[in-house]
Amino acid sequence: MSVRNIYIVGVGLIGGSIAKDIKRLNSNLNIVGIDSNASHLDEAKALQIIDEKATLEDLVQADFVILSVPVDAALHLLPKILDTVHDDALVMDVGSTKTNICKAVANHPKRRNFLATHPIAGTEFSGPKAAVENLFRHKTNIICEIEKTAFKLQEKALTIFQIMGMRIRYMNPEAHDKHIAYVSHLSHISSFMLGKTVIEKEKNERDIFDMAGSGFASTVRLAKSSPEMWTPIFKHNKENVIETLEEYINNLEQFKALMKQDDFESIFNEMKATNHIKDILNGIA
Amino acid sequence: MSVRNIYIVGVGLIGGSIAKDIKRLNSNLNIVGIDSNASHLDEAKALQIIDEKATLEDLVQADFVILSVPVDAALHLLPKILDTVHDDALVMDVGSTKTNICKAVANHPKRRNFLATHPIAGTEFSGPKAAVENLFRHKTNIICEIEKTAFKLQEKALTIFQIMGMRIRYMNPEAHDKHIAYVSHLSHISSFMLGKTVIEKEKNERDIFDMAGSGFASTVRLAKSSPEMWTPIFKHNKENVIETLEEYINNLEQFKALMKQDDFESIFNEMKATNHIKDILNGIA
Repeated sequence: MSVRNIYIVGVGLIGGSIAKDIKRLNSNLNIVGIDSNASHLDEAKALQIIDEKATLEDLVQADFVILSVPVDAALHLLPKILDTVHDDALVMDVGSTKTNICKAVANHPKRRNFLATHPIAGTEFSGPKAAVENLFRHKTNIICEIEKTAFKLQEKALTIFQIMGMRIRYMNPEAHDKHIAYVSHLSHISSFMLGKTVIEKEKNERDIFDMAGSGFASTVRLAKSSPEMWTPIFKHNKENVIETLEEYINNLEQFKALMKQDDFESIFNEMKATNHIKDILNGIA
Repeated sequence: MSVRNIYIVGVGLIGGSIAKDIKRLNSNLNIVGIDSNASHLDEAKALQIIDEKATLEDLVQADFVILSVPVDAALHLLPKILDTVHDDALVMDVGSTKTNICKAVANHPKRRNFLATHPIAGTEFSGPKAAVENLFRHKTNIICEIEKTAFKLQEKALTIFQIMGMRIRYMNPEAHDKHIAYVSHLSHISSFMLGKTVIEKEKNERDIFDMAGSGFASTVRLAKSSPEMWTPIFKHNKENVIETLEEYINNLEQFKALMKQDDFESIFNEMKATNHIKDILNGIA
C-alpha cells in the first residue's frame, strides 16, 4: 500500500513547513490538516499549506500521519492516533524530546506503526504563517528506536526525509534528550533569561535598547520563541535541562570570580579556548 | 582648516570599516593607516582600505585621527596622540567603554581636540579582512561629553557620522558604561559561557554538535569574538559587568528553582513576559 494522503496533526511552524516541502515535491499527495486551534486550521487552508481540513476521527483513512504538536499534547494524542489508524499507516512525531513519547507507546499494539523523529530545524516564530519551504534542507533528523518500526514504514519515512533533504542520525531516546538539552534547550533558556535581565533593567533605565546592536539581537533571538511549545519541552526534559543549567551557571560564576579577582589573563584564555566554537559552527548551516 | 587626511590608528574590523565608508563617500581624502601589527597594516594597504602606511610620529600632519584599538591600548595611546597632533586636529576614539578614556584626558591641554564616541556596530570577526562597508548604517553612535570638544571639531565629526548614516545619542560616560554592560557586554559573556559549557560536554560526548541547529548558532555567535578586544573591555567596565552578571545568574537560578519545583506555570509566564523582546528588537536593525 503506497502513500496517497498525509495528515498533519498540528499545522504550525514545523507541521506547516513539512507540508510545504512535501506538497512541492509531490503534488499528487493529498495533504490534510488537523488542529485544535480552528483559526490556525483555516489559516493553513487559506495559505494552501493543506488541501483540506479534518478531525482526529478521520485518521482512519490516513496513510501517513505527522504529529507536530507541543510534546505534552503529543504524549496524550499519540496512543489515540495509533488506536485509530489502519494497519499499514505510518505515524511519526517530530517533538524535541523523545524519551517520554517512546515510553508512552512502548507497549502499544501498533508500536510498529510509529516512528520517533526529531528534525532539528525551526525559527523563533510559530503558527501556520511561520511555515516556510526548505526549513529542513541539509539539517539533521534524529531517529530513535528505528528497530521498533515496521521495515516497510521505515522505508516510507526515509523517502520523505530524503525529499526534504535531511541527513539522518540514529540515537536512543535517552541519548537524544541528554544531548539536545545542551545544543538546543539550554540556549533557549540562556536567551530568555538574557532578555529578562535586560527588560527588567529597562524598567528603570529608559532608552537602554537604543544602544542594543546586532550582537544583542542575535543572542536574544530565541527569547521570541513560543512558551506554549517550550514549557512542555522543559517539563519533559527536566533532569537533563537542570544539569545543563547547573553547568552553565557554574561557568558564569567562575567567570564572575575571575573578574572579581582581576584575573584577566584567565578570562582571556577562557575566551581564546572558546573561540574553538568557530570551527564547530562551520559545520552548522 | 578643513580635513584633507584621516589617520586610522588600528586598521581592524572597526577602523577598517570606517575607512571604507569614508573613502567611498569622499575619494579626495587621503586615508592613512597606523597599526602596531605590521602584517595587518600591509593587509589593509593591499585591500585598499588605506592609501598609505604611517607611524605614530606622522600624526603631526593629521587633520582627523580615529583611534580604533582595544580599550586598554587606547588609554595609553590617546594622551600621546593628543600631544602629537596640531591645534586644529580632531581625535576621536570608538571604544566600547567610555569612563576611563574620558578620565585619562580630562586635564589634557588638548582635551578640546578629543571626541569620545562609541559607534555601536560590529561583527564577531576581527582584523582588516573583517572590515565591511555600511557596517554603521542606521546604527546608533553614542557621543560622550560633547561639550568638552571644540565646537568646530564637533561639526567635523558630525559630518562624518552623517556620511556613515549613523543616528546620534548623547550620554555621559558613566551612563554609557552602565547601559552598554547590559545590551552588549553581558550578551558576549552569556554567549562565551554557553559555548564553553557545550564544548566541555563534547569532550566526553562525541557528535553532540551534529545536533546543533541554527538557534544554537545564533545564541553562541558572539563566542567567536576576539579575546584581544574583549578582555580589556571587561576589565575597564568591571563593576558594571559584574552587576549585570549577578542579575543574569540570579534569573537563571530562579528559572532552575522553578523547574525543580515543577512550577511550569511560572516558567510559562516568565517566557511569555520575555516575548516582549519581539517588539523591542523590531527597533534594532
